[in-house]
Formats: sequence, structure tokens, C-alpha cells
Amino acid sequence: MIGIDWGTTSFRAYRVGRDGGIRDQRAAPKGILNVPDGRFGDTLREEIGPWLAAGEDRVLLCGMIGSRQGWVEAPYLPCPAGPAELAAALVDIGFDWARVKLVPGLSGLDEAGVAEVMRGEETQVLGVATLLRDGGIACLPGTHSKWVRVAGGRIVSFTTHMTGEVFAALRGYTILARMMRDGPSDGASFDAGVARSADPGGLLHHVFGVRALALADRLAESEAAAYLSGILVGHEVRAALAGAGGAVVQLIGTPELTGLYGRAIQACGGYAERHDGEAAAYGLALIAEHAQWT
Amino acid sequence: MIGIDWGTTSFRAYRVGRDGGIRDQRAAPKGILNVPDGRFGDTLREEIGPWLAAGEDRVLLCGMIGSRQGWVEAPYLPCPAGPAELAAALVDIGFDWARVKLVPGLSGLDEAGVAEVMRGEETQVLGVATLLRDGGIACLPGTHSKWVRVAGGRIVSFTTHMTGEVFAALRGYTILARMMRDGPSDGASFDAGVARSADPGGLLHHVFGVRALALADRLAESEAAAYLSGILVGHEVRAALAGAGGAVVQLIGTPELTGLYGRAIQACGGYAERHDGEAAAYGLALIAEHAQWT
Repeated sequence: MIGIDWGTTSFRAYRVGRDGGIRDQRAAPKGILNVPDGRFGDTLREEIGPWLAAGEDRVLLCGMIGSRQGWVEAPYLPCPAGPAELAAALVDIGFDWARVKLVPGLSGLDEAGVAEVMRGEETQVLGVATLLRDGGIACLPGTHSKWVRVAGGRIVSFTTHMTGEVFAALRGYTILARMMRDGPSDGASFDAGVARSADPGGLLHHVFGVRALALADRLAESEAAAYLSGILVGHEVRAALAGAGGAVVQLIGTPELTGLYGRAIQACGGYAERHDGEAAAYGLALIAEHAQWT
Repeated sequence: MIGIDWGTTSFRAYRVGRDGGIRDQRAAPKGILNVPDGRFGDTLREEIGPWLAAGEDRVLLCGMIGSRQGWVEAPYLPCPAGPAELAAALVDIGFDWARVKLVPGLSGLDEAGVAEVMRGEETQVLGVATLLRDGGIACLPGTHSKWVRVAGGRIVSFTTHMTGEVFAALRGYTILARMMRDGPSDGASFDAGVARSADPGGLLHHVFGVRALALADRLAESEAAAYLSGILVGHEVRAALAGAGGAVVQLIGTPELTGLYGRAIQACGGYAERHDGEAAAYGLALIAEHAQWT
């Protein structure tokens, strides 16, 4: 089968064999915002035409391609949901070269009853074998980080943290911007920020400390962004792990981000295992197995 | 005497009688950033010339006028410090119409050893009689809120929270901006945000909920900014009051801000008393009493 993680800015396609192994893959900067005039079918043909010609005829898509701005809008499926529930809720897309279906996103309520939604992350999470088998916690760091709980082979709940976007807003549009210069960081500043997040005073006090330390010449301009990032990630991880000390967290994302989050999770008393975007391929193949293709 | 709270954007002058009462006052948008070419002496003459002509000849300034961008830079005085210590550290300014002195700002270290500084707030805090007499906690809300501890008639420590500026950055430069429209709020949304800040999940999760609630049509565009503000102020107040349940907080600032913070403090289990900017006049008069004017 062919599995495609089609997000806002990127397109990642995997050709998965019957044994579940990835036989081929390709990526392009053809996220849904970069496809002109809604020509999703043309894009699909351009990218995976050779695989279709070679005989593949089952294509499963996940991600923002199922949103209002995508090809076809797929209504969110409420939690809890696993591969079988998602497979039963797939949305068919009319496409003349192959059978194409879409994984719906998931919706849920956090502890306070606030609605949450995701598109694409559910498939990545279900592609991590250990989560599906034993349950546990997944974290998908990014602009809007997701923390996802899995139990009994199903996603039971999740929460979103605005960490990446808050970082960008503080980095770019506050007094802290003047304290920062782009440049390689040695990692120690990120760790110092994570450690700082454990102190009393709260996030709004800790972020001001970036300025105070810089004014006191205790924080170099090239390290200030890493320190700020550590403060924010540290607060995210501590809040997400609250009451789950010693938890094992399955991190899914780019090596750069999962590396940083892994260090933060360890510093906060948890354990991290890291996975990259290929988790989506395994999740797509698993959902495809449960689906009706006739 | 004449006391002047001369900040970044505003100039507030008070004529204080021998009984400590405010006899006259004037305000102008002549903060240090609005005075061209460093003509601070000319501005002073324009604003308080008539009072000087009427016989006043002791002028005490506090605020950013003592910063590097101000008239004369006054080095920060380390905490703990009260009226006597500040009076002993006043900086003389050469001015031919009257004797003019400057209150230095204060510096301190927070619990984690991070340096903090203030200019002007120290004078407002010492102008609140109950703090000077009984000690306690002051809060000066704003772009960079200050929380100040007073004991034995001296300021012993303080912390800064970047609440106002974080609000502006999130309001203006994140996905939340689209969820918001300016407009009068009924106050209930601010209170709901304060209540939300007590839930698990942390600040970075709570702020994302602004989007989730708006998408679910559970938060009107005209209420979203007030809700976001409540979340941030709630987190600030909870962190600042941690371990001080039932505390009485002396709030100093504009009626609008101290009104909101007063509600938040009450919701977080504390008690608030409100004071406006005139606290600076009482603080300036008190410091002037301790000073050598000959």
C-alpha cells in the first residue's frame, strides 16, 4: 500500500510492503498550502505515479489534507479510537488511478472539558508499536505540541501546548528579541532553561529572567534563544508529566526536536524513546489493514 | 516639596505640603522617551515653574529619569532598602532654579539568584503606609509586573513577571490573533480565564484553549482577549502567591488594572487593597524627609 502524511507544508509518501516494511519513500515541499487551486489529484499523480504504475492501488492519506483547506474535509472522530475505529471512519476520495481514502482526525476533551483536535498525529502515534501494545504517553513536539495517552490499543485523550508558537512570539516580538542573536548553541543553555523551569515564580517570571541574565552579562546573545526555549519546553514537560513521575514518553518528530525534548523529559524525571516521521508509515499501513478496500 | 514620578512615557508631578497631603498635581505625556535632545531641565521648568516661583525649592525625582536614557544615571541600590537607605543614596542633579535630587532604583536577587532591578516602583511601594508599618506584599501590575516584599520598613526582595508583554505578543503575533476582536468585555471572561489557570496542564496548554474554545463557538471574538488576559494574570498571581495563601496584597496602579488584579487575587485565595499612582507622592515625600537638603 501507499501511505501519505500530507500536512500543511510538507508531503511525505511511503510505499509499504506486505511485511509492513518501508520499501520506498519520498518527500516534497508540497503541503496543502503549497498546492495551487486545490489540484491535489495532480500532485498525487506527479509524486506517486510510478508506484501506481508498478501495481500499488491502495492509497491512504492522513494529516491536514483532510481539513477544510484540504482535498475533502473529514469530520473528526471522537476519542477513544484505535486503528479499527479509524479504519471504519475512512473517507473515500474520488481518484481515477487508485482507491484513495483519508484518515479522519480525532477530537477529544481535556480534563476541563475544552475541545481538542488533531489531524495526522493520531496516525503517527498508532504507528509506534510499543504504544499500541502496552499503552503509554506520546509527545509530538512542535509549534503546537501534542501529548497523547494510549491505552488498550486506542488513543484515549490528548492535550495541545502552544510552546513553539509562544517561543516564536516572545523571540520576535518582545523586549527579549534584543537580547538574542542567531547562532549555534552548545546545548548547556537549553538545559539551564529546563532546570530554571523547576524554580518557584512561574513561567511569566522565568521568561523575564532572560533579560535580567543578559543585562548582567550572565547569558550570551547567542545562547539566549536556547535558554528561553529550555524554559518553555521545561514548563510544557513538567505540566504534561505532572502526576506521572518516572513516565516513559514516546517522542515522535524530527531528530532535532526529539533530541531536545528527550533531554528535557529526562531532566524532569521521565524517560524518553525517540521516533521519527516514519511512524506515520507504520500507522497508515496498520489502519489500511483494518479497512474495507472493496 | 515637589515629588515627580518621571517614567518612560509619562511625567507626574505632586506638590506635597508639610502635613504630607497632596496640595496640587499635574501630569503630562512627557516621559523620558518624549523629551527631545535630553532637555529634561527645560521640561521641568515648563511643568513646575509656577510651583518653584511660589517658593518650593526641594524637588525629588524617581523613575526611569534615573536610567541611562534619563537625565543622570543613578546606580541601583541593593535590597534590602527603606526610606533612610534610599535617602542616603540620592543623586544630586545640577539645576539652577531649585535643589533637585534623584531616587536611585533598587536591585535584588530572586530565589534562584537571578538579578532583578526596578526604578520608580520602590518609591510607590514605600508610599503605602500599611506596607511600611506592618510589612507585606505589594503588586504593581503592568507590562512587566512587580511583586515586592516589605518587612521592617524596608523592601527586602522583588520579582518581575512579563505578563503584560506576553499578553501583547500572543494577542498580536500568534494564531490567537484571528480569534479576537476589540470590544467591551463583561468581565466574566476574564474571571473564567483566571479560573482556568488553576486547572492541570499548565500555561502553554491553557493559552491554546483560547483557540479551541473559539473554534467550538464557546468563546466570542469580543471576549477572547479578556479570557487570555485572565489566564495569564491567573498564572502570575498563583505563582506569586504560592505558599502565601490568604495573603493581603497591596495593589498599586491604574484603577483598571488594579481592579482586574484584585479580582484575580481574590479568586486565588488572597485579599487585595488598591492604591493609585499617588502612592508615589507619599513615597517621595517620605524619602525627602530623610534626606540632607543643605
